[in-house]
Amino acid sequence: MNFASDNWAGASPRILEALAAGNGGLAPAYGQDDLTREANARLSALFGRDVGVFTAATGTAANSLALAALCPPYGAVYAHEDAHIIADEGGAPEFITQGARLIGIGGLAGKIDPARFETVAGRASGPAGRLPVPAALSLTQATECGTVYRPEEILALTGPARERGLKVHMDGARFPNALAFLKQLSNDIAPADVTWKAGIDALSFGFTKTGALMAEAVVLFDAEKAAEIEWRRKRSGHIVSKARLIAIQIIAMLEDDHWLDLARHANAMAALLDKGLRAAGHEIAFPVEANEVFAVLPKALIERLRQAGGRFYEWPRGSLAPERHPGPDADLVRLVTSFATRPDEVEAFARLAAG
Amino acid sequence: MNFASDNWAGASPRILEALAAGNGGLAPAYGQDDLTREANARLSALFGRDVGVFTAATGTAANSLALAALCPPYGAVYAHEDAHIIADEGGAPEFITQGARLIGIGGLAGKIDPARFETVAGRASGPAGRLPVPAALSLTQATECGTVYRPEEILALTGPARERGLKVHMDGARFPNALAFLKQLSNDIAPADVTWKAGIDALSFGFTKTGALMAEAVVLFDAEKAAEIEWRRKRSGHIVSKARLIAIQIIAMLEDDHWLDLARHANAMAALLDKGLRAAGHEIAFPVEANEVFAVLPKALIERLRQAGGRFYEWPRGSLAPERHPGPDADLVRLVTSFATRPDEVEAFARLAAG
Amino acid sequence: MNFASDNWAGASPRILEALAAGNGGLAPAYGQDDLTREANARLSALFGRDVGVFTAATGTAANSLALAALCPPYGAVYAHEDAHIIADEGGAPEFITQGARLIGIGGLAGKIDPARFETVAGRASGPAGRLPVPAALSLTQATECGTVYRPEEILALTGPARERGLKVHMDGARFPNALAFLKQLSNDIAPADVTWKAGIDALSFGFTKTGALMAEAVVLFDAEKAAEIEWRRKRSGHIVSKARLIAIQIIAMLEDDHWLDLARHANAMAALLDKGLRAAGHEIAFPVEANEVFAVLPKALIERLRQAGGRFYEWPRGSLAPERHPGPDADLVRLVTSFATRPDEVEAFARLAAG
Amino acid sequence: MNFASDNWAGASPRILEALAAGNGGLAPAYGQDDLTREANARLSALFGRDVGVFTAATGTAANSLALAALCPPYGAVYAHEDAHIIADEGGAPEFITQGARLIGIGGLAGKIDPARFETVAGRASGPAGRLPVPAALSLTQATECGTVYRPEEILALTGPARERGLKVHMDGARFPNALAFLKQLSNDIAPADVTWKAGIDALSFGFTKTGALMAEAVVLFDAEKAAEIEWRRKRSGHIVSKARLIAIQIIAMLEDDHWLDLARHANAMAALLDKGLRAAGHEIAFPVEANEVFAVLPKALIERLRQAGGRFYEWPRGSLAPERHPGPDADLVRLVTSFATRPDEVEAFARLAAG
Repeated sequence: MNFASDNWAGASPRILEALAAGNGGLAPAYGQDDLTREANARLSALFGRDVGVFTAATGTAANSLALAALCPPYGAVYAHEDAHIIADEGGAPEFITQGARLIGIGGLAGKIDPARFETVAGRASGPAGRLPVPAALSLTQATECGTVYRPEEILALTGPARERGLKVHMDGARFPNALAFLKQLSNDIAPADVTWKAGIDALSFGFTKTGALMAEAVVLFDAEKAAEIEWRRKRSGHIVSKARLIAIQIIAMLEDDHWLDLARHANAMAALLDKGLRAAGHEIAFPVEANEVFAVLPKALIERLRQAGGRFYEWPRGSLAPERHPGPDADLVRLVTSFATRPDEVEAFARLAAG
Repeated sequence: MNFASDNWAGASPRILEALAAGNGGLAPAYGQDDLTREANARLSALFGRDVGVFTAATGTAANSLALAALCPPYGAVYAHEDAHIIADEGGAPEFITQGARLIGIGGLAGKIDPARFETVAGRASGPAGRLPVPAALSLTQATECGTVYRPEEILALTGPARERGLKVHMDGARFPNALAFLKQLSNDIAPADVTWKAGIDALSFGFTKTGALMAEAVVLFDAEKAAEIEWRRKRSGHIVSKARLIAIQIIAMLEDDHWLDLARHANAMAALLDKGLRAAGHEIAFPVEANEVFAVLPKALIERLRQAGGRFYEWPRGSLAPERHPGPDADLVRLVTSFATRPDEVEAFARLAAG
Repeated sequence: MNFASDNWAGASPRILEALAAGNGGLAPAYGQDDLTREANARLSALFGRDVGVFTAATGTAANSLALAALCPPYGAVYAHEDAHIIADEGGAPEFITQGARLIGIGGLAGKIDPARFETVAGRASGPAGRLPVPAALSLTQATECGTVYRPEEILALTGPARERGLKVHMDGARFPNALAFLKQLSNDIAPADVTWKAGIDALSFGFTKTGALMAEAVVLFDAEKAAEIEWRRKRSGHIVSKARLIAIQIIAMLEDDHWLDLARHANAMAALLDKGLRAAGHEIAFPVEANEVFAVLPKALIERLRQAGGRFYEWPRGSLAPERHPGPDADLVRLVTSFATRPDEVEAFARLAAG
Repeated sequence: MNFASDNWAGASPRILEALAAGNGGLAPAYGQDDLTREANARLSALFGRDVGVFTAATGTAANSLALAALCPPYGAVYAHEDAHIIADEGGAPEFITQGARLIGIGGLAGKIDPARFETVAGRASGPAGRLPVPAALSLTQATECGTVYRPEEILALTGPARERGLKVHMDGARFPNALAFLKQLSNDIAPADVTWKAGIDALSFGFTKTGALMAEAVVLFDAEKAAEIEWRRKRSGHIVSKARLIAIQIIAMLEDDHWLDLARHANAMAALLDKGLRAAGHEIAFPVEANEVFAVLPKALIERLRQAGGRFYEWPRGSLAPERHPGPDADLVRLVTSFATRPDEVEAFARLAAG
């Protein structure tokens, strides 16, 4: 009954097997090897065009380096006020871009409100130099609330952003979960449809939360950016020496859509949890689309669940409409499922919540 | 016959087994887990005192963050002019310390010449502010030339450095190889004897080149520094989420002195190569102490060795006394062995070199 | 009728005379001269204790360097959302602190709302490292709305801030105007009463807007901070060579309370303008306390005033309660007076506004 | 007898008069005024083409911002090892470029040795990313040894630099003295001949040492760079509010070649000192071309001169051929003249030195 985070699990068995299988022999270091080239080629194939790729060992590095490719040190990056890059990365985007200012924008259910984006971005039109120059917009897919932007919702943000000359980044730490959900709505949807065809310039494509040991890829749809970013990777210490061992994870993930299968399982477990908690009469704060459930639970129940071994976090209410904020005896909690979550622990948790 | 680098190998089988064994179950992310605590405790035990520890996925991150713990942004770091932090890390120490200036000092066989260090450090005594404030000295152990500082050689540098108020860093990307060699000289020697007891404040303790997948530890002998450095790790994107998988590698390395066994093998292969090349009449540039052999080979032979499948790099001559620089028909090459090097490929290479 | 800004005027005649008088002879450069020492001594005398002082040629440099003395690169600085450091300095505080995050807090009439400060600062108590560490609070005195914090209002903010371990900065680009106003309320009030005795750690004491050519002083009430900050001044290029020429301006300002006389004149001109506009029936947005008048004027009148030679800027409405926001036919404008403003141009402007 | 530095003098009388004359009235701040536009136009006229210009209050800011326009954060800047940007600016170029590495190159009499430049720049051709990317060369004109590069000497460095794709910066803190000297050799020589026509991309044109209060101009021969650099000026706090007062100084300097007249006087005083010291039998280390004399004086004489009121500094010997280094009883001293140096004090000093 551990729903603390999807990065509390280890790696999926297939990832470990791939590591063991590909570990032998010698290969050039720092990403100059054949497996790294293969991983990049597979990502190009997945997105249906030539893409620039670099890998990273952490999602924070992936996001920050991607932003450094899109935003000058004196630029501004707009993102949802609860976005990981603003609320969880300890200033890494500012550090690695060497100074970009992050500007939070509100919006329900973790999604940036297009009207608010317009208002905030419009304010930056004062005398030159007073405010950082508007440079990039960053969307989180799936969002921090476990919801998923539809293609048209993405376009409603990237359209105005691009008109203003902004580049657009997508934080896809849970991109696999988002895509698994979207494919459920329409099996035709492809990664390209919610990225470069929808106005995205750079995607942080996360595999770690999905079930890798540590493997994040940044996909640059403007492949020219990839050359400069190599320098920034090097000088921020983010080029691992035995890079083929990251490439192996990415290849294993893409093989037979393993990434989608793992994400589908995590999403299904969240859906099961959603169903169980609703059946028990609890309010679910946001539509459960990816692998997170946000529930409003009585404080006494939260206490009981924890004593029974449940693990999860209370969560800020910024993305919840004020009129829906829990009263003094309840709290908003986040429950995250992963490839390793088992139906029986979901069911046990739901039973306890119903008790 | 691949002697290109010790980071061209994968992980040692025991490391992969440990990863597979420890991969199951859920554990807190970002280093808040029991295995990370255990790895730290084992490092404290190894060094015979409480130490602060943080882990990193790359040696460049380990070195740069260690320096950031010792040197302010407006400080100067002294190191051998061929040191990895100066010659190979693409400006990462400057970036992650947010501005430290690296000052190279010459010296034969990869070791800083104490007299030259005194001269260069003495120059910094002009009017306040004109030059970055002298802040740290960084030694590489084993050196970039495959030689190993003896305890008294370390003290001959750390003594004067500490008198000047400098902190001292040790880049131990090949610390295991250095220690394996020193233990051969005197089995009593302990990690403490060539680190904190010899005036070292922070050690980058490398396990990746030794045979981990990716696992570097920075050992801070002034444990108080560890708190501040957590912020710098976070904002440089160097806290991996599934941190226990790095801790597992460190624990497996320290178990039964696996790290020393792997290093001893690599060193032995270098000794074998040294012996073979000398027997073939070639000049060996530096004493072969750790896992690197630097040989002066005729250019025609270099060509033949490569055609036969040999992999290695030509090397700059900065650490070689000018009178020993190879003539126009020869070159200085570097040959690196690892835990994965086999005696038969060393022997085959030596035979070819004798041909 | 030019009310665009108080930095559109040149220097006061006494400042130019002092420069001419003190220009002869030779003196050590970079602030090692007797006049710089005298300026510092006079500031210590003014504040009734030993203070650390450094000078700067721009207010942005003064603010940013002061913040660098109070906040680590991984820290957060709280300020009013319309504060100059957030809204007008192009990211300089972030750059010169090497990464501090600025967090804007709302509040009417340019003053930080203590309750909102508590709420925002309280949010930063999540897991270590996710958010920049709360480090400093910055107040603007006089505020960007031309209002002046009373001593008890300062304490209502510095008290809770200090309890949280924050350092407190005061942006006193218009500190002379603030003090001239406070002395009008109670002649006993001294600079110490609204700075270190009220919980301020560092003051950017502006003389340029008051009537210097270019002369800003940062007063560090914790004099120890002054040593480290010298390195940061040097490496940001903010130590002028002929520093005595800045010291001369400060000495001339402090001589016979010239700074207060200039500020009193500017304030009196603002009061006259306030009176004239009110008499003409216009709404004045904030109490006119220092040297700025914010008026709600019909757009047609704004047009007429400009055609008649009036110079001034429209202003954002963030500090105005929503219910007081001007309708579609009116705008909020800012009118700034200075030592060089003449009563006749104020009267002419008021007459036109009444027409 | 004060030869400590040319920045120990105040401003020339004409500069102060110009400030007084132009001080009245109101004008837009931050460089949006007519006088700033006029200063820029005059600089374009002086250089015979459209140039981008920005002003600064310090030479360190001018150099560092100019380098930031030419070099990315991950680039390397080559300069003479005694250049001000390496030896005197406390790391400001690294800070303001956000990370460029400065690489010192030797050479006699303050001039970069073209052969050594080739050797050092050639070393940077290793595997991508290991070393900062070669980006810029910086020449100092006049040099730190008071010598002046001839046009063909400049071309001998800028030619190979440009072939390597480097941009070239000129630190002209004493550009007026250099030009005054070159015009003595050939009156036809124009500022263009030793700048953009000789391969220079950006010039730090110093007026402060020449006799301004504080006024430095950076002239960008690639005017497009000027837009981006405005953001960097703003965020480093280097846009002064009453910018017209810097423009006034530049205009007054350019009017009737006042800058050249001041420089000629300073140069003539140095020539007089050179003659007097040679007549007294002392060795002069470098050809006296601009406004500095480097003399080898007996230590006992140095002591006597100081007791008689002489002010000057001992100087490092890096630019002096080893065989000419002074023995244990003598020292190399630097004597700097300025617009304010009087013949009688030069003569008095020479008499004492002959005594």
